[in-house]
Amino acid sequence: MLPYKTLIQLNRASNISLYIQLCNSFISLITDGTLQAGDALPSTRALSELTGLNRNTVKLAYEELVSQGWAESIERKGIFVLSKLPALSKNKKNVSNRVLDLQKESFIWDNPFIGKKETENFQQSVLTIDDGFPDVRLTPIDLLMREYRSISKKFYGKNFLKYGYPQGSEHLRNALCRYLADTRGLVVTPENLLITKGSQMGIYLAAQLLLKASDHIAVGVSNYRSADEIFRYTGASLLRIPVDDYGMDIDVLEEVLQQQTIKAVYIIPRHHFPTTVTMSMERRLKLLKLAKEYRFAIIEDDYDFNFHYDNKPYIPLASIDHNRNVIYIGSITKTFAPALRTGFMIAEPGFVEASSSLRQLIDKQGDSLLEEAFSSLFDNGEMERHFRKSLKIYRQRRDLFCEILHSRFSNVIDFKIPEGGLAVWSVFDTSISLSDLSQSAAKKGLKIADGSFYNNEIFIPNGLRLGFASLNEQEIEQSLELLRKII
Amino acid sequence: MLPYKTLIQLNRASNISLYIQLCNSFISLITDGTLQAGDALPSTRALSELTGLNRNTVKLAYEELVSQGWAESIERKGIFVLSKLPALSKNKKNVSNRVLDLQKESFIWDNPFIGKKETENFQQSVLTIDDGFPDVRLTPIDLLMREYRSISKKFYGKNFLKYGYPQGSEHLRNALCRYLADTRGLVVTPENLLITKGSQMGIYLAAQLLLKASDHIAVGVSNYRSADEIFRYTGASLLRIPVDDYGMDIDVLEEVLQQQTIKAVYIIPRHHFPTTVTMSMERRLKLLKLAKEYRFAIIEDDYDFNFHYDNKPYIPLASIDHNRNVIYIGSITKTFAPALRTGFMIAEPGFVEASSSLRQLIDKQGDSLLEEAFSSLFDNGEMERHFRKSLKIYRQRRDLFCEILHSRFSNVIDFKIPEGGLAVWSVFDTSISLSDLSQSAAKKGLKIADGSFYNNEIFIPNGLRLGFASLNEQEIEQSLELLRKII
Repeated sequence: MLPYKTLIQLNRASNISLYIQLCNSFISLITDGTLQAGDALPSTRALSELTGLNRNTVKLAYEELVSQGWAESIERKGIFVLSKLPALSKNKKNVSNRVLDLQKESFIWDNPFIGKKETENFQQSVLTIDDGFPDVRLTPIDLLMREYRSISKKFYGKNFLKYGYPQGSEHLRNALCRYLADTRGLVVTPENLLITKGSQMGIYLAAQLLLKASDHIAVGVSNYRSADEIFRYTGASLLRIPVDDYGMDIDVLEEVLQQQTIKAVYIIPRHHFPTTVTMSMERRLKLLKLAKEYRFAIIEDDYDFNFHYDNKPYIPLASIDHNRNVIYIGSITKTFAPALRTGFMIAEPGFVEASSSLRQLIDKQGDSLLEEAFSSLFDNGEMERHFRKSLKIYRQRRDLFCEILHSRFSNVIDFKIPEGGLAVWSVFDTSISLSDLSQSAAKKGLKIADGSFYNNEIFIPNGLRLGFASLNEQEIEQSLELLRKII
Repeated sequence: MLPYKTLIQLNRASNISLYIQLCNSFISLITDGTLQAGDALPSTRALSELTGLNRNTVKLAYEELVSQGWAESIERKGIFVLSKLPALSKNKKNVSNRVLDLQKESFIWDNPFIGKKETENFQQSVLTIDDGFPDVRLTPIDLLMREYRSISKKFYGKNFLKYGYPQGSEHLRNALCRYLADTRGLVVTPENLLITKGSQMGIYLAAQLLLKASDHIAVGVSNYRSADEIFRYTGASLLRIPVDDYGMDIDVLEEVLQQQTIKAVYIIPRHHFPTTVTMSMERRLKLLKLAKEYRFAIIEDDYDFNFHYDNKPYIPLASIDHNRNVIYIGSITKTFAPALRTGFMIAEPGFVEASSSLRQLIDKQGDSLLEEAFSSLFDNGEMERHFRKSLKIYRQRRDLFCEILHSRFSNVIDFKIPEGGLAVWSVFDTSISLSDLSQSAAKKGLKIADGSFYNNEIFIPNGLRLGFASLNEQEIEQSLELLRKII
């Protein structure tokens, strides 16, 4: 008989019942080849003595083994491992058979602000200068909870727990249509609108539908890295167009278009990432004209619409595009709370329908309950009140932050006061190594990135986006004071 | 002067201020070519008279136009459309320039139970026999709300609104590890686990990482259509293997393997979709053996684990796979609430890491707040209590449903009592047209599908999954009585 006393390990503290543990132990012995087809199992009496288990527990385990098809009971003889089981070889941890090696090029990249371990972020006691995150302390979570309570009390409230619609809640799409017309002259119907999991999903869907491996897409020399990665994932080639103080250089784009067919242009015309520049109206119009002439799509990433401090912001390209070449991508997430992923894509109904179908393949639908709660917050004006309130606070923070940068860092940091967005694009003096800076800062209790996130194959600035929005005034003072000492 | 009185339409009831409306009207006139570069705008006095607006409102609008770069003020002359604007042609709704035609084959499909319009589903007053949805009336939404309140009251609660982790909350991954070990002998660490938006996203990620256009994947002759669509979307070819009463026929698979390299096999070994059969232990072991020998991955879709009524369910293939060829996909969504998309994928850490990276491209991360609330529900045992309670209710519903099918439909419907799952696979007599049936039923207030969702290029049964779980006993009686009358 096998040394069952050592082979079978039971955990009496577990809340899984002992007979199931025993049954699973036998399954392990069978599947790792210790027990072979036709082998006899010990009698219930013997096993009961060896393990100290009640005989009934052993009987239950054997019954379970039989009912699961691992063993058979032969009258007057006992219990045996099923004779017709295929032979199983003995190789417990053979990793040489791994087939799960990846086919597509590994594209893992790190956002320096997203810790690998939760402890890094969620129990943080250090100051962080992030790259432009909102301050979740301002999120009106109580209002969201109130909406949740109100929905769950309604007689039809549980319907929002059922399967819903890949294109998103009709209520939220209607609320967004009104909101977009009012705030940015973007007049669309719910058929033009897909609710996404943040603006990220909008870019992903658009890229998947527009691009294939042989295609080209134009992006900025400096660009949002996650978007670059999405485009690369389709296999398409990236053509990099310079970006200056007036946004992407559309004259250069035109020269490229004369040589090369491109399927799409990706732009962040408002507060370009990472440099925060806004594209001039002249270039916007020329880009629309080129799109018509050369027949390409414009992916307009306007995730930052809500954060514009001075004059009224430019209306989006999508609002002045009469040829319907623009796929417009927006975010609610960024303004409300990053973890409650909600954004939207606006395009032709046919494109929205195809995007919804792809979205259905990916994750079927969004969170209907959250979408319903957000619609109510738009309807009762709380969402816009929150936006206005945050904007006012962020403006104050921007002003203080830039004032300190100006007065105490002007010899080492070159920057412009951003018209909008949540970060200051800061180019450091070449004598400062950002990687050293980041490491020294960490030791002094200040978390700040090393800038590598903004680099790509041709754009290697000695720069950082310095996020001011998630820090209150005291924290701004403290963190910049720390930064000054480190430099 | 242009007929501004008719060209400019203002809505005094809108909550967008009049000067912005006026400004946007001018932008429209400029972008549609009615106003050209260099054109003079009417004086503030003239426009004030024409529109009835206060002169200051007109002034504000003009200032806005100037600040947005659409117009320029020339001293002593007035306001003009910016002279350096590129010429804009006049074509308001020219759709001939549309470039957003899709490249990839359109793959829109319909789930007959997911209405195109919300009114169809959310305000439903008709009885529905769905294809096996849970009853959201059983969802313990109050417990979820309690967790939300409790989290939002904690001093660190707002941290769950920040950016989180593409792999999912560590707390939930830990809770799931304990739960999976206890319930199905699946012993893994949090590194093996990715939290997904429902099992759908698990299948999508696995397919994207495993398959490319020239690859082959084996699936059942009858199969879950969404999975088929996901695999097709990668460009891979589907090889269909017969499925009988003991699950996929692994002997046939072996013959295919001798001829053709395949990258992966997709199986639903527990309650196969749509036919609800469970794969025999013998075939499971043989499949694992073949995976090792022929080096392919097994995508084990076990979305239905929690719904098994009679004996203890088989443990998953993933629990007895020593060669790590299995990618295991599970669902919480299906048991808790379909709209709160939460599932998981279990695989080798390297595969999980790559899947997390791809997930980050798609939508960055899940809903950290929901994940945290779910972890608490696992930790305090409420989740399992809910599972047990639903299981008991669903078993009663299954028994009643099958009893009625047996007593009143035995001449027209062929079925077996399912060991688990939320639906009865029902093959109708060939004299009955399911499409006619569905239409007649709709007229009588019973929503039931026409079965086309289960069809594919070689599987065309006259069958339907009849879902019993979302109906209470009275509704079961009513809906089957209606169905009987219609037949």
